[in-house]
Amino acid sequence: MSTVSSWSTTVLPVVETMATLAFAVSGILESARKRLDAVGVCTVAFLCAFGGGTLRDLLLDHRPFFWVQHIELVWAVLGLSALSMALLRDTHREPTERFILIPDALSLGLFTASGTQLALLAHLPSLVAVLLGIVTAVFGGLMRDLVCNEIPSVLKDHRPYAVCAFAGAWVLVLLWHVGAEPWWSLWISASTTAGLRGVALWKQWSLPSWRN
Amino acid sequence: MSTVSSWSTTVLPVVETMATLAFAVSGILESARKRLDAVGVCTVAFLCAFGGGTLRDLLLDHRPFFWVQHIELVWAVLGLSALSMALLRDTHREPTERFILIPDALSLGLFTASGTQLALLAHLPSLVAVLLGIVTAVFGGLMRDLVCNEIPSVLKDHRPYAVCAFAGAWVLVLLWHVGAEPWWSLWISASTTAGLRGVALWKQWSLPSWRN
Amino acid sequence: MSTVSSWSTTVLPVVETMATLAFAVSGILESARKRLDAVGVCTVAFLCAFGGGTLRDLLLDHRPFFWVQHIELVWAVLGLSALSMALLRDTHREPTERFILIPDALSLGLFTASGTQLALLAHLPSLVAVLLGIVTAVFGGLMRDLVCNEIPSVLKDHRPYAVCAFAGAWVLVLLWHVGAEPWWSLWISASTTAGLRGVALWKQWSLPSWRN
Repeated sequence: MSTVSSWSTTVLPVVETMATLAFAVSGILESARKRLDAVGVCTVAFLCAFGGGTLRDLLLDHRPFFWVQHIELVWAVLGLSALSMALLRDTHREPTERFILIPDALSLGLFTASGTQLALLAHLPSLVAVLLGIVTAVFGGLMRDLVCNEIPSVLKDHRPYAVCAFAGAWVLVLLWHVGAEPWWSLWISASTTAGLRGVALWKQWSLPSWRN
Repeated sequence: MSTVSSWSTTVLPVVETMATLAFAVSGILESARKRLDAVGVCTVAFLCAFGGGTLRDLLLDHRPFFWVQHIELVWAVLGLSALSMALLRDTHREPTERFILIPDALSLGLFTASGTQLALLAHLPSLVAVLLGIVTAVFGGLMRDLVCNEIPSVLKDHRPYAVCAFAGAWVLVLLWHVGAEPWWSLWISASTTAGLRGVALWKQWSLPSWRN
Repeated sequence: MSTVSSWSTTVLPVVETMATLAFAVSGILESARKRLDAVGVCTVAFLCAFGGGTLRDLLLDHRPFFWVQHIELVWAVLGLSALSMALLRDTHREPTERFILIPDALSLGLFTASGTQLALLAHLPSLVAVLLGIVTAVFGGLMRDLVCNEIPSVLKDHRPYAVCAFAGAWVLVLLWHVGAEPWWSLWISASTTAGLRGVALWKQWSLPSWRN
């Protein structure tokens, strides 16, 4: 148990920092495409970076929030937003969608795995842990699209996104129940999710939908 | 007091199951009309089914959430979504709006009554209990419309919906204060709401609005 | 410490009442411009009036919510909505935007200052307190625009709004750390925010944005 607890206090924050900054980047790029103002850029970066984790902490009743415990993350996202605006505002090209996809797939994997693991540490049932993992990873992007006044792409674009997170989260639950090392479980689960997402994009897999 | 407590642990869950599945159906039908993908169908079904109750539990600071305590509900909504997609995806007709109205009116009544009752059990003032009842019933549908990028119909369509819930919730508060049997109170309140909703649709009652 | 505590129990509620009603007015005017029905008017008035403070209380894990403790506020917003509909529904002119700007600037200042102060009283880091102050002030209007199916103006219109709140909140944090009287701090901070907002509108200051 002490391994698990030292794990959750030392390694998870590093993972969350990486995933947080990657999501912030995808939020900044989206708000550049939508031509939001400086406040809009920071807000959408914040929503993408902290939205999912905040909802997870709220649902788990876990205080203080991870970004209150790691206030440097908030400064980092603020600085990243300001820097991006300074560097990108004069470019004439819109940031390509492809540029968003790579950090997004990595964060998807990392947030899903860490969210699922925190829910398992809180003794929640497996299915709830899986759902909380998906919520952690997907809610930020869903809020980003809502705020930008679009039907969230995660619900509409027929490309596997939440489904990859669903698969990766079940991998983590499986590894948890067979008693695997938390560190390895997290990376295997995150890689599964990110890998599935990459293959889905590459092979252009499509979700079932309604006939027209 | 033991009657109330056995009531709240045995009968309320049954009521919530019925209302939850009816709302999930209305979410699935709406997402079929919007041609969302499989993830979108499940998500909108979840939002409709669990959105209002989750917000109520969050506002009441009531953990674990009702769907964590009744994890079979989550499986049921997942299964219902998959089944509906399998059965409905080849139909050429759009699901008619009328088909949505019936489960929706029943859930409106049941969710309002159970939400109001839980708030009264938590010793909140009558008006707050009424508002929490309405939030429990209406928030899921409001999120459904937000996610589908529409002005929520509950705010705009001039047909009494939240107003029926408002009336039904006050009926429950009244019965609570005269000490009526909780079981009967719940059904009388839920029937009042659903009945008013039915009459409002039938007689085409219209809410006051702005002159153009 | 007893000064701070008596301050927070006696004066803050008065400030919140004023700010709440001013935000409710701005919500009612917006919903009139959007031609929502009676339920829509009340809901948007509620969102504007209580949305930011409720999210703040939820994030601070502060129960009961301020509007449960001050139930008369809820009645006041309900009454104000009914009264406004009765008075305004026959006017042919749309409420002018200018008419929204004045109560909005005052509430911006008051909500930011009181939200920041409550977060400081809860021993949160300065930056988190500033962000909570902004959330308290801005979230209601953001929800108003989301529900009305628009990209929130706070993110898009290039006029300083959240930035004024950011400046005013740091003034309060500064005064807090030098040990200034809470009452004066609050008013100085609120006036700074509202004043900056006024000057920004008058001088037509514009936020940095993307080149087209």
